[in-house]
Amino acid sequence: MAIISLLTDFGLRDGYVGVMKGVIWRINPEAQIADITHFILPQNIRQGALALERTTKYFPRGTVHIAVVDPGVGTNRNPMAAEMDGHFFVGPDNGLFSLVFQAAEKRGIHGKYITLDRPEFWLPEISNVFHGRDIFAPVGAHLTLGVPINQMGTPLLDPVNLTLPEPKKQISSWLGEVIEIDNFGNLATNIRRDQIPMDVRVTVQICGQMIDGLIRTFEDKPAGELIATIGTENDLMVAVVKGSAADRLKARIGDAVEVRFGGGKD
Amino acid sequence: MAIISLLTDFGLRDGYVGVMKGVIWRINPEAQIADITHFILPQNIRQGALALERTTKYFPRGTVHIAVVDPGVGTNRNPMAAEMDGHFFVGPDNGLFSLVFQAAEKRGIHGKYITLDRPEFWLPEISNVFHGRDIFAPVGAHLTLGVPINQMGTPLLDPVNLTLPEPKKQISSWLGEVIEIDNFGNLATNIRRDQIPMDVRVTVQICGQMIDGLIRTFEDKPAGELIATIGTENDLMVAVVKGSAADRLKARIGDAVEVRFGGGKD
Amino acid sequence: MAIISLLTDFGLRDGYVGVMKGVIWRINPEAQIADITHFILPQNIRQGALALERTTKYFPRGTVHIAVVDPGVGTNRNPMAAEMDGHFFVGPDNGLFSLVFQAAEKRGIHGKYITLDRPEFWLPEISNVFHGRDIFAPVGAHLTLGVPINQMGTPLLDPVNLTLPEPKKQISSWLGEVIEIDNFGNLATNIRRDQIPMDVRVTVQICGQMIDGLIRTFEDKPAGELIATIGTENDLMVAVVKGSAADRLKARIGDAVEVRFGGGKD
Repeated sequence: MAIISLLTDFGLRDGYVGVMKGVIWRINPEAQIADITHFILPQNIRQGALALERTTKYFPRGTVHIAVVDPGVGTNRNPMAAEMDGHFFVGPDNGLFSLVFQAAEKRGIHGKYITLDRPEFWLPEISNVFHGRDIFAPVGAHLTLGVPINQMGTPLLDPVNLTLPEPKKQISSWLGEVIEIDNFGNLATNIRRDQIPMDVRVTVQICGQMIDGLIRTFEDKPAGELIATIGTENDLMVAVVKGSAADRLKARIGDAVEVRFGGGKD
Repeated sequence: MAIISLLTDFGLRDGYVGVMKGVIWRINPEAQIADITHFILPQNIRQGALALERTTKYFPRGTVHIAVVDPGVGTNRNPMAAEMDGHFFVGPDNGLFSLVFQAAEKRGIHGKYITLDRPEFWLPEISNVFHGRDIFAPVGAHLTLGVPINQMGTPLLDPVNLTLPEPKKQISSWLGEVIEIDNFGNLATNIRRDQIPMDVRVTVQICGQMIDGLIRTFEDKPAGELIATIGTENDLMVAVVKGSAADRLKARIGDAVEVRFGGGKD
Repeated sequence: MAIISLLTDFGLRDGYVGVMKGVIWRINPEAQIADITHFILPQNIRQGALALERTTKYFPRGTVHIAVVDPGVGTNRNPMAAEMDGHFFVGPDNGLFSLVFQAAEKRGIHGKYITLDRPEFWLPEISNVFHGRDIFAPVGAHLTLGVPINQMGTPLLDPVNLTLPEPKKQISSWLGEVIEIDNFGNLATNIRRDQIPMDVRVTVQICGQMIDGLIRTFEDKPAGELIATIGTENDLMVAVVKGSAADRLKARIGDAVEVRFGGGKD
């Protein structure tokens, strides 16, 4: 089994992603390659990090995840690789993988981090602008062939860490924010299921609207209704039944969300 | 051979499709996976059904087609699978596959339909919002491993049927409509080749324009000319030679198209 | 090893690309298929030719590159295949592959060109509008099975050639133009690295702006600065550090770029 996933901010117009697949198959023609997404907003490391944390865990152990959101390409930021819980990660050391690593560390799992500094595993010529092609694709392909990660570079003690805004606990509420908006206009938030008491009445405030209670399934409400529920990632999600909450609320990433619970009126 | 096709309204931005591939490869790392399209308009079952009918027949027998356009996810609509003419279909029972099934039935081929109700073939945890990941991807992967479809669920007698607008026969014309507009601005209609007499003069009326005769190839007319011809699906197609009929006519899905034949002037 | 790359102007919305993969897998279910891009501007042969020249060389020898940008489909333009430097190319004979061929010829490598005229390697039914599905996909799949190219057709002596605008040498400058704009808003030009003297002062003029000197890496300049550097293809590239040069300059393909070198002031 040789499975590679790709996540970049390259888009699909210019052929950059196709080139990476060509480079991978020159080294391992058997590799299966899946695109996670190439529509991370240009150079938006945080969005890439969130997408990696949400998605890579669904791939089988042994998968090599190559990710390139790399505003510092051609500067002194390091290329890196990691082995974590049976998965491999290859890309720039700029925080892109740090939410994956933090989630694993929370479960007591520790990773092996490497600064890539062995050019014999890269393309012969290295540009200053396209390390996805020149460094990350070939390193990822060599990993699928079983080259041990520590032959590719030098131990890296302290990969760059990203800190996400954490929801703030108030007296009887959590104050969080919208962290992602998907293709359907559903709003993902940084408030987690386990922060919401399930046995008391809850209200959600967002963009000047108040939503009364969490619903379990969309079936509970008619089309067009603004609702709050638990999303794909066990987070508080705000949606419109058969519609778009982003359009309805003109919501943006970073908008405040408050979940209030308890209160005298229930 | 283990081939899977995917068709959804997920878009390619959020990584949902990549996650489905990860889930599939956890179960069958050898599966070849092709995207048919992920740009079905959100929750537009009819458009998804038309696309499945046009495309799945070109895949080899044994292909598992997983399709998710699923406004009813998390409600009481059933998850289903089908075996039809050597192909497999997995997705929501909401009419999405019904045009494929109708086309096969017309040829006298009958399918086997199943309500998916054996959670041992699903992911351990089932969300209310993403059955593509939790149910359909794992079921599809198990089918490529040779698990018989009737082990996955209970016979389904009457899957949901979609009825498309049929063109109406007038005294000396067919009255139909635009049913799809492609990337080139070509207009596909619901009028079929075999409804158009080939031995008499034909005129096509659409969006206030009249097109005189059907051409056999684009070569017959200069660039920029509005023409009618037979499209990829043996349907009446309206196009602009080296241009976009959708732009020229400001055409939309549902616009009326009339094919008149015979008449005194010929 | 059976690797196929696909490049078209089909977009990803209509399922045309998925259909081609289905057709390929009916003939060779083991083929690995990578999308280079499907977002070539509709019927823009030149853009497709540039993309093929930039990308196909990164694939392993033996790869079959199927490309379809085909405004003349259904006319008398020929379908063709070629074998060049261990790679195979399949598509319309309209200049689409000619930049790849020219680059190889410059290195003294000669290709074998074939007009495709053996329908036994095509789908049984040939439409006038979709040769990607009916001719090119099946021919490409047969090539991955080892069918020799000259069994597929008749020698083609003179495939259609595209000529790109070459930069013009002035007394102390090169006058070129923008030939591609990528997803990041970087501007690729037709001025090549080896045309720029590296030992004298250089200035770049574009869209009324003057850029002083070439930088080696983005690190040399602060975010937001307009810079000139050497791009992924060893061409002169104009960019904005962590930004978009296309947006900043409102640049378009075809805009003039002048590189001046030497001069008294250095």
